Amino acid sequence: MSTIQSLNGSKLSSAAPKPLENARISAMPHKSTSPLRWGIASTGGIAEQMTRTIHAMPGAEVVAVGSRSQKTADRFASKFNVPRAHPSHTDLCNDPNVDIIYVASPHSEHHDMTVIALNAGKHVVCEKAFALNTGEATEMIDAARRNNRFLMEAMWTWFIPAVVDIRRRIIAGEIGKIVSIDADFCLNISDPNGRHRQADLAGGAMLDLGIYPLTFPCFVLGEHPDEVKAIGRLTDGGVDATVAGVATFPSGAISTFQTSLDAVSGHGARIVGTMGRIDVDPPFWFTSSFTVHSHGANPRHITMPNEGLAHEAAHAMERIRNGHIQSNVVTWDATLQTMQLLDAVRKQVGVVYPSER
Amino acid sequence: MSTIQSLNGSKLSSAAPKPLENARISAMPHKSTSPLRWGIASTGGIAEQMTRTIHAMPGAEVVAVGSRSQKTADRFASKFNVPRAHPSHTDLCNDPNVDIIYVASPHSEHHDMTVIALNAGKHVVCEKAFALNTGEATEMIDAARRNNRFLMEAMWTWFIPAVVDIRRRIIAGEIGKIVSIDADFCLNISDPNGRHRQADLAGGAMLDLGIYPLTFPCFVLGEHPDEVKAIGRLTDGGVDATVAGVATFPSGAISTFQTSLDAVSGHGARIVGTMGRIDVDPPFWFTSSFTVHSHGANPRHITMPNEGLAHEAAHAMERIRNGHIQSNVVTWDATLQTMQLLDAVRKQVGVVYPSER
Repeated sequence: MSTIQSLNGSKLSSAAPKPLENARISAMPHKSTSPLRWGIASTGGIAEQMTRTIHAMPGAEVVAVGSRSQKTADRFASKFNVPRAHPSHTDLCNDPNVDIIYVASPHSEHHDMTVIALNAGKHVVCEKAFALNTGEATEMIDAARRNNRFLMEAMWTWFIPAVVDIRRRIIAGEIGKIVSIDADFCLNISDPNGRHRQADLAGGAMLDLGIYPLTFPCFVLGEHPDEVKAIGRLTDGGVDATVAGVATFPSGAISTFQTSLDAVSGHGARIVGTMGRIDVDPPFWFTSSFTVHSHGANPRHITMPNEGLAHEAAHAMERIRNGHIQSNVVTWDATLQTMQLLDAVRKQVGVVYPSER
Repeated sequence: MSTIQSLNGSKLSSAAPKPLENARISAMPHKSTSPLRWGIASTGGIAEQMTRTIHAMPGAEVVAVGSRSQKTADRFASKFNVPRAHPSHTDLCNDPNVDIIYVASPHSEHHDMTVIALNAGKHVVCEKAFALNTGEATEMIDAARRNNRFLMEAMWTWFIPAVVDIRRRIIAGEIGKIVSIDADFCLNISDPNGRHRQADLAGGAMLDLGIYPLTFPCFVLGEHPDEVKAIGRLTDGGVDATVAGVATFPSGAISTFQTSLDAVSGHGARIVGTMGRIDVDPPFWFTSSFTVHSHGANPRHITMPNEGLAHEAAHAMERIRNGHIQSNVVTWDATLQTMQLLDAVRKQVGVVYPSER
């Protein structure tokens, strides 16, 4: 995957996506009748949300949690009724009862935790942003391939029914040829000690929030940008407080995105085509509704069910049960392309994490 | 005014705006009791709109129209009850009954028509985009200064009461420090023979439509961007079909904008601050209403009267009656800064007009 820097922005690899990796797991341990046993790596808010989600799903159970201390692990296990609590990530990964690890730590830990889990023979679903950079992401994918285990970036947006339906409508040409897409995700996250503002935890708006408005067009268009230009403001600590950017797509569409840790934006998205427009109700990244404005027709407001993280978790389990080691929705190529985009944006904005120096 | 090109975008002049030009007209011909006599240069849609507007205003009258043929001028004069019809721009400018010329021709004609009118001793209100480029704009302003006549870019948005009120609220800190602004203006203008798609008439989305979302943040923030990055798609004829971009402002705000000739966008604008948000109802460039979302308070929807072009026309006449040769709202510096921005965007997107080659 080559990256060509142009004067005005980052020209991105225009190579066609590689065919899907269809390798099957040699010794498939999960018969369709036995529940898939999840281990939760980390105990933050998203870990809590996924644990609750899996508890409520058929064919799945949370059997263990891992933290950096026994005390934190115990507290989480007790609160969410998880049978086993491990005082380290290695212990979690060595638990023979665990089939799949959900990595929910800060971005800075994703690479190491994922590689440890894969080397221990576990499948992995790893939160976005998948890694600090494309180099780390490539190593993680290599580890999955080497260990013949399933690995997927937890890009839940791509499994939300309304988002999937929006993509379907675009591909069907319901609003004509897509001309522009814009989306924003700005939150007020002011705590100077929180992970979002820590460079050594790979903080900043882009990796945590901006990844959504940046990649939303990629998903709904089914394309990877050929060029991106971004502009940003850094915190005193050297992470990106606010970033805005533009990207072009091979089909001719142009996108704009905004993200910030300093303010709350509208959280909607808009897709403009030659024959109409789709306004995506906030929050666009897990929306339940949208409005289709087709030229010459009354606007149609469409509502669809939304079970949050359950859609991506169900997809991951279905892929594993069918012997695949990657998703056919969030493919490894899609994840690498997302990382490449994030790398390009960070380079233009001037964010370098301590471990990259 | 210097322009420094950076690797990633166009770094723009950061010089503070010059003090307003307060020179007074030596022989002020318009006592407050006598109507100001307008001559309309060109007979297109915006010329019709301005003629209707001035007819309805106190202290003003349309006394003449100029076109490239007697026939077209006669037709316009008859339709809008204008006393005199001239078969050339020079004839219109030489009409001793005309005090002020409204230049409403395609962009490619603005420079020459404005300079001819100023040299003939007329005041001028010239439609946006003011000129093809900064060089032309500078010459036009020099002509106004040399002839001691009023000259203003017809940036009507900056006089619309709701827009003025939005600016007031921002300056008063009603939504805190501004973090981001976005706006879009995309229309479906498909006629290949219309002026919008003609390079020799200085067509393209940016100069005609994009100037609004590009400069809206400048007006409401009272600032000029320090950097802009843009991306675009050209038509086969070499004008910009679609452009999107980002800009940073000295105060820290970031803006995004979209414009296109290929599709109809939402036409709203959104201003996000640390303490709230203002959603500007479409069309943002002559909006009559907006919603203020302040943190911890119920959203307030505010409606204000809107008399379209009358606000800018009244301002121009008031400045002339008071002996000024430029506006203190759309200053010559503001116009030059807008042109500099448009030049930077066009350079990045690759649009060069035939007369610039």
